[in-house]
Amino acid sequence: MAVLFFEVMKYDIKQPLHKSSDRFILSKGHAAPILYAAWAEAGLFPTKDLLNLRKIDSDLEGHPTPRLNFIDVGTGSLGQGLSIGCGMAYVGKYYDKASYRVYVLVGDGESAEGSIWEALNFASKYKLDNLCVIIDVNRLGQSEATSLDHNVDVYYNRLNAFGFNTYVVDGHDTVELSKAFHEAANTKDKPSALVAKTYKGKNFPGIEDEVNWHGKPLGDKAATVIPYLKSLLKNPGPTKVTVQPFKDDAPAVDLSKVHLSKPPSYKPDDKVATRLAYGNALIKLAKSSDRVIALDGDTKNSTYSEKIKMVNPKQYIECYIAEQNLVGVGMGAACRDRTIAFVSTFATFFTRAFDQIRMGAISQSNLNFVGSHCGVSIGEDGPSQMGLEDLALFRSIPGSTVFYPSDAVSCERAVELAANTKGICFVRTSRPNTSVLYPNDKTFHIGKANVVRQSSTDKALIIGAGVTLHEGLKAYDILKSKGYNVRVLDPFTIKPLDYKAIEENAAQCGGNVVVVEDHYPEGGIGEAVARCINHKNITIKYLAVREVPRSGPPDVLIEKYGIGAKAIVDAVLQFVDLS
Amino acid sequence: MAVLFFEVMKYDIKQPLHKSSDRFILSKGHAAPILYAAWAEAGLFPTKDLLNLRKIDSDLEGHPTPRLNFIDVGTGSLGQGLSIGCGMAYVGKYYDKASYRVYVLVGDGESAEGSIWEALNFASKYKLDNLCVIIDVNRLGQSEATSLDHNVDVYYNRLNAFGFNTYVVDGHDTVELSKAFHEAANTKDKPSALVAKTYKGKNFPGIEDEVNWHGKPLGDKAATVIPYLKSLLKNPGPTKVTVQPFKDDAPAVDLSKVHLSKPPSYKPDDKVATRLAYGNALIKLAKSSDRVIALDGDTKNSTYSEKIKMVNPKQYIECYIAEQNLVGVGMGAACRDRTIAFVSTFATFFTRAFDQIRMGAISQSNLNFVGSHCGVSIGEDGPSQMGLEDLALFRSIPGSTVFYPSDAVSCERAVELAANTKGICFVRTSRPNTSVLYPNDKTFHIGKANVVRQSSTDKALIIGAGVTLHEGLKAYDILKSKGYNVRVLDPFTIKPLDYKAIEENAAQCGGNVVVVEDHYPEGGIGEAVARCINHKNITIKYLAVREVPRSGPPDVLIEKYGIGAKAIVDAVLQFVDLS
Repeated sequence: MAVLFFEVMKYDIKQPLHKSSDRFILSKGHAAPILYAAWAEAGLFPTKDLLNLRKIDSDLEGHPTPRLNFIDVGTGSLGQGLSIGCGMAYVGKYYDKASYRVYVLVGDGESAEGSIWEALNFASKYKLDNLCVIIDVNRLGQSEATSLDHNVDVYYNRLNAFGFNTYVVDGHDTVELSKAFHEAANTKDKPSALVAKTYKGKNFPGIEDEVNWHGKPLGDKAATVIPYLKSLLKNPGPTKVTVQPFKDDAPAVDLSKVHLSKPPSYKPDDKVATRLAYGNALIKLAKSSDRVIALDGDTKNSTYSEKIKMVNPKQYIECYIAEQNLVGVGMGAACRDRTIAFVSTFATFFTRAFDQIRMGAISQSNLNFVGSHCGVSIGEDGPSQMGLEDLALFRSIPGSTVFYPSDAVSCERAVELAANTKGICFVRTSRPNTSVLYPNDKTFHIGKANVVRQSSTDKALIIGAGVTLHEGLKAYDILKSKGYNVRVLDPFTIKPLDYKAIEENAAQCGGNVVVVEDHYPEGGIGEAVARCINHKNITIKYLAVREVPRSGPPDVLIEKYGIGAKAIVDAVLQFVDLS
Repeated sequence: MAVLFFEVMKYDIKQPLHKSSDRFILSKGHAAPILYAAWAEAGLFPTKDLLNLRKIDSDLEGHPTPRLNFIDVGTGSLGQGLSIGCGMAYVGKYYDKASYRVYVLVGDGESAEGSIWEALNFASKYKLDNLCVIIDVNRLGQSEATSLDHNVDVYYNRLNAFGFNTYVVDGHDTVELSKAFHEAANTKDKPSALVAKTYKGKNFPGIEDEVNWHGKPLGDKAATVIPYLKSLLKNPGPTKVTVQPFKDDAPAVDLSKVHLSKPPSYKPDDKVATRLAYGNALIKLAKSSDRVIALDGDTKNSTYSEKIKMVNPKQYIECYIAEQNLVGVGMGAACRDRTIAFVSTFATFFTRAFDQIRMGAISQSNLNFVGSHCGVSIGEDGPSQMGLEDLALFRSIPGSTVFYPSDAVSCERAVELAANTKGICFVRTSRPNTSVLYPNDKTFHIGKANVVRQSSTDKALIIGAGVTLHEGLKAYDILKSKGYNVRVLDPFTIKPLDYKAIEENAAQCGGNVVVVEDHYPEGGIGEAVARCINHKNITIKYLAVREVPRSGPPDVLIEKYGIGAKAIVDAVLQFVDLS
């Protein structure tokens, strides 16, 4: 940390987040105290503030978060920092074309996380020579020694095999470290790694290299350890540290003008999958700004993220089949407002990166997720490919916005709104082709539902989204032929949900509500609606997928799992019979 | 597949799941047709049945699931099969001490998944010489070439660095394959890997090694391809395949007697964290059967899973900081009822393995998860370590059982019930020490709530669990001192939720319900309660954590985020004021 902060890294203590500054990510976030100490020593804040560590009124939290003005992303869930560093380095090399470098400090314990190896593969594939990873091989995990102990040669061989320019160094030898960092900075077309052999609690008598000191304060031992450490200082007097200035060669970026270059242009009798509408929207956004980018994990021909390549292939980043790194790279790319990034894969495969997405909220990330192939309506590929828990996932993210467009027009606008909305946004898209419901000039708002069928004699309110909204429309026709009017509501966003429209429309429909969703019941639209309605005069019937589904044709599965027009009609008729 | 099924693997076509049979996992589940074809060719079912692929009334689904009697685990979400194979191989080597071997076929595309590298590290660490992984390097992903293309040397170097006995072979050369499998089977103390260079659509004219044929049927091309392939057959006549018999040396296992060896034994004034009670329960279960095992990811001294080592260190598997592999190994270990496995880490880190847990349900796994350190009540470590979405995660798993014990007695019984319950079970434990609420001889049931405070004049029903149940009890005392009686309900299981008890008690409390949880609102207890209540005279107030929390003392955070006694009292008083 001393070598990095006071010899290697180029930054300005007055502008820690400057666009041209070198970046540092402490992936082993539990080592937060040394990071805070480094910034204090550099002069960002008084060293006495370090004593506020972990206090309720201090931003010097147990693990770093961007509440601090020198932190890009939250860390503390292990193994995530390197993917984010890859995203930053990719932007630095290919978009900013600037000289800043990205340093990521990884613990040896956390290097067992697969996400680290996804990131290493990505870094060498894209020749991120502006990236330098340091592995702190201190041998000790939280509860016992790590699986590789102090075998630095194994680390060397693995990093080397993953395409890194690798150095094994004594992590306590500042001269060796300095030399390796210098060589790394001068190595072209390969990312670099320092395997730093260290001893936890080095020079702490009775503590060095011992287990059971993880995360513990010294307590009484401070009285002997601190004087001993001081006695080892070669220059005990106050030292003035210097910080290397950076070259300000990253371009200014303006993300405020991102919009659909042309409005949606569908014909009323078109049948268009929302996943395809996502691709169309991407094209239009990408035309409005070359800082709109799409990332995918080898599903781009299914999610239609590949459409962005028609505008400019450079606005697409292929992340291969490694969803954790996919999300991390997206987070790094979007960090400090360098890009507006859209990350796509099958909706269900975002479960692979739930931890990264969760940390994205803590990191105050502005990142857009697009999940295709939701629900049983994908058909024959079977349950492993069906997103049936993705709404539960994305709804649980603090501050998230969850779009579930039901036609191509609203999908294009959802994507445009997502691009311009802070925080984690999720757009749920569907595989089947469905009718266009809205005129091309229709305006959509976050948290604003649309009533698509209504009369003054409605017997029930049907709430659906995506394919189930279209099933609701079929049910509307069937019920109408039986002499019953029903109201059909498209929530557009599931979070925030339009409480007012739902309560008002439910009341106008006799308090009879049917919620129907291509999702498991838990954490889905039904529960969101249940929580929004003050129950006094309203009864809700919940239609959702209630077991692990199987392979089959989409329309057969939709009825088999009770979320089709027939099931909706039955639910409404139960209300009518009761009244 | 031909070499494996008809020359290498030892199995009995009449008993595909036999305890002593070699195991085969098709990690690249999308190649299901070749797996089905192999079993049909071996004689398990008529080859004409293969034409039912992906039909609604056939179990030959788009990706393999255990609905088929020859499938151990569902695959189709990529990169998961190897961890499961590791779990099986670990059991085979260390518990069964049997001669069966485990084969896992991995796609080159999916080898970009970090979970593969977690599993490789695990396999070599534990010297799983009964494990053989085959990487099918066919060069082509779904949407483009893989990141490593046909560079088999890179695969070789990486596998070698990860401690594997590795062979590069021509995947179309049966003699080469056969030789490598033979050598692998005779290599001690190291797992083996075959890097098989293949061509997708080998010998299919105009298709071999071409992109854009992923997952597509031949269509018209069948008319030329099939006759051409037939013309290449050296022995075109019907061939009788032979299957190698296995040695039946795996022991029979009886998991039906697993129970707490002694009942809970807490004193009424004890204050015990439920995470510690989990450790105590593990000890007692482990004493009842040596097939009860615990797995953890270097948090065993926090979750208290390490307690099982006091019974027998061999009943613990350290999986290091690699939660995806941790879950996969647990799934493999529990497969075919070889063990009762408990997988533990901080509740929030199960988000890292959501995809594996989701696939666990598809795989019909019987696996127990224990997540400690839930909610803001962990305190100073901050938001990255707080489980605030774990209920949403586990509730969304089809067929899951979600326990949320509120004291040490009920926690021990929850763990015992989990051990004896099919499907995915989750036990949510807490960090703080809390009072013992129940007598040691109390019986608990899944789906059965307990009312812990009540009178005939209750003004509101408070529903809480874990720390918030104890906050509810504090609120009870405060309200009582103000002259108001309230009822307090402990749900015990959040899924299934005791609908009957909640509805009845809510009605008896004037329809005034306060749900309070150390969790985000989405997918948590509040929404579960909202969905369970479906009559017209009940109003619910939801107290939950509504933003990303920060570091601080537990009791301060509990009040700051509105889930403490004060907030509960306020919510109840609003009801009282309204009435």
